[in-house]
Amino acid sequence: MIGVGLVGYGYWGPNLARNFSARADCEIMAICDTDRGRAETAGKLYPRALVTDRFAELLDHRGIDAVLIATPVSSHFELARAALRAGKDVLVEKPLSGTVGEARELVEIAAQNSRIIAVDHTFLFTGAVQKIKEIVDSGELGEILYVDSVRINLGLFQNDVNVLYDLAPHDLSIMSYLISESPIAVSALGKSHTVNNIENVAYLHFEFASGLIAHFHLNWLAPVKIRRTLIGGTKKMIVYDDMEPSEKVKIYDKGIVMKGGDKESVYKVFVDYRVGDMVAPKLATREALAVEADEFIACIASRRRPVSDGEFGLKITRLLEAAQTSLNNGGQRVALEANQ
Amino acid sequence: MIGVGLVGYGYWGPNLARNFSARADCEIMAICDTDRGRAETAGKLYPRALVTDRFAELLDHRGIDAVLIATPVSSHFELARAALRAGKDVLVEKPLSGTVGEARELVEIAAQNSRIIAVDHTFLFTGAVQKIKEIVDSGELGEILYVDSVRINLGLFQNDVNVLYDLAPHDLSIMSYLISESPIAVSALGKSHTVNNIENVAYLHFEFASGLIAHFHLNWLAPVKIRRTLIGGTKKMIVYDDMEPSEKVKIYDKGIVMKGGDKESVYKVFVDYRVGDMVAPKLATREALAVEADEFIACIASRRRPVSDGEFGLKITRLLEAAQTSLNNGGQRVALEANQ
Amino acid sequence: MIGVGLVGYGYWGPNLARNFSARADCEIMAICDTDRGRAETAGKLYPRALVTDRFAELLDHRGIDAVLIATPVSSHFELARAALRAGKDVLVEKPLSGTVGEARELVEIAAQNSRIIAVDHTFLFTGAVQKIKEIVDSGELGEILYVDSVRINLGLFQNDVNVLYDLAPHDLSIMSYLISESPIAVSALGKSHTVNNIENVAYLHFEFASGLIAHFHLNWLAPVKIRRTLIGGTKKMIVYDDMEPSEKVKIYDKGIVMKGGDKESVYKVFVDYRVGDMVAPKLATREALAVEADEFIACIASRRRPVSDGEFGLKITRLLEAAQTSLNNGGQRVALEANQ
Amino acid sequence: MIGVGLVGYGYWGPNLARNFSARADCEIMAICDTDRGRAETAGKLYPRALVTDRFAELLDHRGIDAVLIATPVSSHFELARAALRAGKDVLVEKPLSGTVGEARELVEIAAQNSRIIAVDHTFLFTGAVQKIKEIVDSGELGEILYVDSVRINLGLFQNDVNVLYDLAPHDLSIMSYLISESPIAVSALGKSHTVNNIENVAYLHFEFASGLIAHFHLNWLAPVKIRRTLIGGTKKMIVYDDMEPSEKVKIYDKGIVMKGGDKESVYKVFVDYRVGDMVAPKLATREALAVEADEFIACIASRRRPVSDGEFGLKITRLLEAAQTSLNNGGQRVALEANQ
Repeated sequence: MIGVGLVGYGYWGPNLARNFSARADCEIMAICDTDRGRAETAGKLYPRALVTDRFAELLDHRGIDAVLIATPVSSHFELARAALRAGKDVLVEKPLSGTVGEARELVEIAAQNSRIIAVDHTFLFTGAVQKIKEIVDSGELGEILYVDSVRINLGLFQNDVNVLYDLAPHDLSIMSYLISESPIAVSALGKSHTVNNIENVAYLHFEFASGLIAHFHLNWLAPVKIRRTLIGGTKKMIVYDDMEPSEKVKIYDKGIVMKGGDKESVYKVFVDYRVGDMVAPKLATREALAVEADEFIACIASRRRPVSDGEFGLKITRLLEAAQTSLNNGGQRVALEANQ
Repeated sequence: MIGVGLVGYGYWGPNLARNFSARADCEIMAICDTDRGRAETAGKLYPRALVTDRFAELLDHRGIDAVLIATPVSSHFELARAALRAGKDVLVEKPLSGTVGEARELVEIAAQNSRIIAVDHTFLFTGAVQKIKEIVDSGELGEILYVDSVRINLGLFQNDVNVLYDLAPHDLSIMSYLISESPIAVSALGKSHTVNNIENVAYLHFEFASGLIAHFHLNWLAPVKIRRTLIGGTKKMIVYDDMEPSEKVKIYDKGIVMKGGDKESVYKVFVDYRVGDMVAPKLATREALAVEADEFIACIASRRRPVSDGEFGLKITRLLEAAQTSLNNGGQRVALEANQ
Repeated sequence: MIGVGLVGYGYWGPNLARNFSARADCEIMAICDTDRGRAETAGKLYPRALVTDRFAELLDHRGIDAVLIATPVSSHFELARAALRAGKDVLVEKPLSGTVGEARELVEIAAQNSRIIAVDHTFLFTGAVQKIKEIVDSGELGEILYVDSVRINLGLFQNDVNVLYDLAPHDLSIMSYLISESPIAVSALGKSHTVNNIENVAYLHFEFASGLIAHFHLNWLAPVKIRRTLIGGTKKMIVYDDMEPSEKVKIYDKGIVMKGGDKESVYKVFVDYRVGDMVAPKLATREALAVEADEFIACIASRRRPVSDGEFGLKITRLLEAAQTSLNNGGQRVALEANQ
Repeated sequence: MIGVGLVGYGYWGPNLARNFSARADCEIMAICDTDRGRAETAGKLYPRALVTDRFAELLDHRGIDAVLIATPVSSHFELARAALRAGKDVLVEKPLSGTVGEARELVEIAAQNSRIIAVDHTFLFTGAVQKIKEIVDSGELGEILYVDSVRINLGLFQNDVNVLYDLAPHDLSIMSYLISESPIAVSALGKSHTVNNIENVAYLHFEFASGLIAHFHLNWLAPVKIRRTLIGGTKKMIVYDDMEPSEKVKIYDKGIVMKGGDKESVYKVFVDYRVGDMVAPKLATREALAVEADEFIACIASRRRPVSDGEFGLKITRLLEAAQTSLNNGGQRVALEANQ
C-alpha cells in the first residue's frame, strides 16, 4: 500500500485524488490546500485523509510515500524540492517549473536523493497518443515531414501563466514523445489582447535538422474548441482530433510520389498522388490519468524512471523558455542547444 | 453586347467561359490556348468562337472588348500588357502578377490607356465573404483582434508557383477586403518537401499597427481539406468554414469582458466570459464567378473601377512578395510600406 | 435538511447519490443494494450512510424522508409501493413501472398517502429540452407538423427490458413534455436479433388528431451513436442533436409557403420556400440531474407536484404499453384512449 | 458511333446530355422538349442537335439508335413505348413508370422488339454503392440484419409524384441491388402537410423472410439535408453518408457476440461487444452518370441486359406500388408476391 499526499485541490487536484483513491494499492493520506473552501470539499469526499492548509504538516505525515503536486506553476519548484528532500517520490503538474533553472535543479535533487520525479503530461497516456506512438514507431508513416497542431477555445484566462505555458506543454510533450529527434530552433509569435500583457494567442514554429517542421496554434480567445493535430509523413498521414467522440485518430493512406525526371509543361505537376483507404483504429478508452497512475505507482514500486520523468519535464521547460524568448523578441529565431 | 476573348483554357478558363457565355449581354468571341487538345475542347463547346493558339490573333479580333486571362502566373504580365495596349479591358487571374514591379506597370498602363483592369479574386464575390464584409462593416464584431485561416488539402503541386502564390492570394484578398487597415509587417515560415524546392507548406503572420494579427496556414500536403477562417472581435467572433455545405458563416456572441480592477488570488482570472447565441445567417448562393462577371461587365459599361481592381491586385502582390522575402530569410520580419 | 435513502447502486444510482449528496439541504442517510460489491463501493464513497442489502432496513431508518429508486424496472412497483406506504416521498427511475396497472396503482397510493411521486425522466431537465420547451411554448415554430427522433448506438443489451422500454421513455417523455396534445394511435415495428427474443430495434409511429405525427427510431445495434430529434413546424424547425458538444439546439428559419391558387405546369411546384438564418441559442449547462434534484427537493418542501410526477410517468407507461402491443401484433395500429 | 435522342430538358436532362455528349462513341442527334425556353437553351449548347418540341420528329430522326427519357413520371410509359416500338433502345428516368401494369408492359414490349430498356437508377453507379456492393458480396458483413436509411431535406415539392415516388426509388434500388433476397411485406406510413394531399413525409418498413428488416425515412420538409444509410450485419456494419465530401462509406468492425449459456443477474447482459477499427475505403470518384452511360452504351453494343434493366425497374415499381397501397391504408401491412 502506497501512501499518497496531494497538494492543491483546485482544478486538477480532484482528478488526481479520484484516480489515486480508486486504486487498491494506494491510499490518499493527506490533502493540502491553502483555500479553506476547497480543503473542506476535499475533507467531505476523503474523510479518512488528513486535510490541512500547511504543506509542512502533509510532509510530516509518516504514511506518505509520494506527493502529488497540483498547484499553480509558480509554486511547483518550492513544493517539489521540499518533497524530494523529505524523501518523497513526486508527481508534478505540467509544466515541471516556470524556469529551466528550477527544473534542472529539481532533476538534480531527485537524482541526489534517488527519488522518482514524474511530470503529469497526461496526454501521453491517452489511448489516442499511445496509438499514434505505436504507429509512428512502426515506421508506417514513412519519414515525418510536419506536425501541425491547433489547440484553441474560449479558455480560462489565467494570471500566472500565458497561453504558451498553459497549452503548449500538451503539444510539446506529445511532439517530444512521438519524435525522437530534438528541434534545433524555435520562432514564436503571439499577442496579448488584455491589459495584463499575458499572451492569449501564440504561434510556435519548430525546426528540426532533418527538415521536419512543427507548428502550434494556441489560443484562449477562439469561439470554437479545436484540438487537432496533423502528422504528415511521406507514406501516410495522421489526423488526431481530440474533439471526436470516438474516432479520434485517423490514418490516411495518402501521400505524394515524386517524379523528378519529367520535363514539364507549365500545367504539369512534379508529383503524383497516392490516395488510399482511411483507417480509424480502435483506441483504448481507459481514463488517461488512471493509466498514468499505474505507471507512477509501478515506477515507485520498481524504482524505475517514468516515461515522463524529470528529464522529460526539463526538456519541455527548455522548449517553453526558448519559445517565450522568441515571443519576447517579436518572433526572432532562437537556436536550441544540441543536447536537448 | 460585349465581346469577350479568353486566353487560357486549362483549369479555370472553362469556368470563365461558362459564366460569361451564359450572360445575355456578352459573347465569347475568341478562345486562345497554346495546347491543341484544350483548344479543341473549347471549340466543341463554343462553336461560334474563334479558337486559336496565337494570342495576337485573338487581340486582332474586331469584336473583342474585354480579355479574360486565365494562364499561368508567369505569363500574366505580357498578356495583360498587350491586351491593355490594344485597348481592351482586362480581367486577370489571381495573382495579378508574379512581381510587384510588373503589377505596378500593369496598373500604370491601364491608367494611361483608360482601361479597366480587374483581378479575379473570386472569393470576394462569394455569398459568405459578402456577408462577412457586411457584418464587419456594421461594427457588430467590435474591434477585430485576430484573423486566423487554415487553407490546406492534398493539393495540386504546381511547378511555376509555390503554395504561397497559389493559395495565399485567397486569404490576402479576403483580409484586404474585410480590413481597411494595412499590415505593417509580415513573417513567413515554410518548407519544400519536394526536390524542386518549391514550398508546399507555409505559415504567414501579419502585424497591424492597431494590434490586430493575421495568421495563415497554407499546405498542399495535408490529408484532409480544411478551409476555415476565424475572425475574433472584442464583441463577437466569426467562424467561416467553406467546407460546410450550407452554414458556412457562423457568428458567435462570445467574448471576454475585462475586469481590470480586481485583486486576484492565484486561481482567479482577469476576465469574464460572455457566451451567447450563435447565428448562421442566410447566404446568397449564386455562383461567385457569376456575381463577379456582373461586376466586371457593369464596370466596363459604366467605366467605374472594380472592387478588385489593379490597385487591389497590386496590394496583394506586394503582400505576397514581402511574405516571400521573409520566407527566403527564415521567417525574418519584413516591414511593409505605410502606403500600401 | 432532507434525509434521502437510495435503493440500487448499479448504473444510475451513483449519479443520484452524487447529485443529492452535493446539496446543502440533503443528506444520503442510507444506500441499499443487494449486490455486496456495489454496496461496498457505495460505503467507501459515502462513509456516513447506512449501507444495507435489505430494503426494509432502509425504510426503517428514521432519518429518511425521501427514497430514490434506481433498480431494474421489474422491481419499481414493489419498492415504490412500500416506500409510499411507509410515508416516504419517492423518485423512481424511468419508466415508472413495467405495466400500466402497476403505474396506476402507484399513482393512487401516492394520492391516498399524500406523498409525492416523481419519475426520473432526466432529459426534461437538460438545458436543451428546457430551451426547446420555451421555443415551442412561444409559438415561434408555428403549427408543429412532425417530430422525428433517432436514438441509436451499440447499446447495452439488457435482459429485463427491450429497446422500447429502455430508450423510448426518453423520446416519449420529451414528446409529452413539449406537445400538449395527446396521440390517438401508435404503430410499432421492431425486431429481435438475439436468441432471447428481446427486441433490439424498434420504430414507433404516433398519430395525433391535429395531423401531427411523431416517429422514433430506437436501436441497440448501430455502429454509430446518434441522438437527433427534428421538430418541423409551419414557421420554423428545430434540430436537437444531443451529440453536439455545445450547439445542441438549432432553430432553422425554414419552411414552406403554400401557393394554392396557381395553375401548374408539370414542372411547377405548389409551394414556395422560405429559407432564413439559423440560430443556435445559448443553453444552460448545469447537469440535468442537479436541476431535477432541485425540483424534487423543492416539491418535497412545498408539497407541490413535480413536472414529471406519477401522472406523467403513468402516461409514458401507457404509451409504452400500447407501442408494445402494436409491436407484438406486427405493427398493427393501436388506438390510444382519449383521456390520456 | 451511337446516335442518341434526348426527350426532356428540365432538371435531369441536361446531365444526360452533358454525359452522353462527352463520349467519343456517342452523339446527341436530337433533343425534344415541349417548353420553348428549355429547348432554346439546349439548342445553344448543342448546336449540331435537332431541337424540337415534337417527340414524333425525334423518333423519325434516322441517326438515332437510343432514346433517353427524362420527363415527368406520368409520361414515361407513352414515350418509352413509342421509342421501343420504333426500334430504339431506351434509358428511362426512375421510376420506370407510375404503375406496375405500365412497367410490365414496357418490359414485354422491349422483349418482343429485342430492344434494351434501362432504368436510370443513378445511385447504383456511384463509387459508394459500387464499393458497398463489393463488401456485401464478399460476406464481410456476416448476415445482414437491417438496412436503415434517412433521405430528407427541404426538397422540391413536386405535384405529379409524392415523396415516396420521388425519393424511395433511390433507396429501393440500392436495397434491391445489394440484397438478393426479396422482401415479403411492406408497411408504410406518411402524411401530406399541403393542401394537395401529396405526401411529403413517409416511412417505409420492409420485412424479409430471413428476418432482415429495411426502414426508410423520406421527407421533403426537413431543415437539414441527411442522406445516410446504415447496414447492420452480424460481423460488421456500414454507415454510408452521402453528404460526406470524401469518406462516404465507413465500415465498422463492430458487432455483438451471443453468450447464450450464461445465467444472468438482473444487470447482466446476454451479449458481448466486439469493437474494432473503422475503415473508410477509397472510392471511385468518377461521375455516376458517366459510369452508367458506359454501361448503357456497352449494353447497346453487345446486346446484353443492363444491371438496372426493365425487370429491375419493374421490381422497384412493384415495391413502390405496394408501399403506396399501405400508405393509403394507414400503414396496413401489404404482402409482396414471392416472385418479385
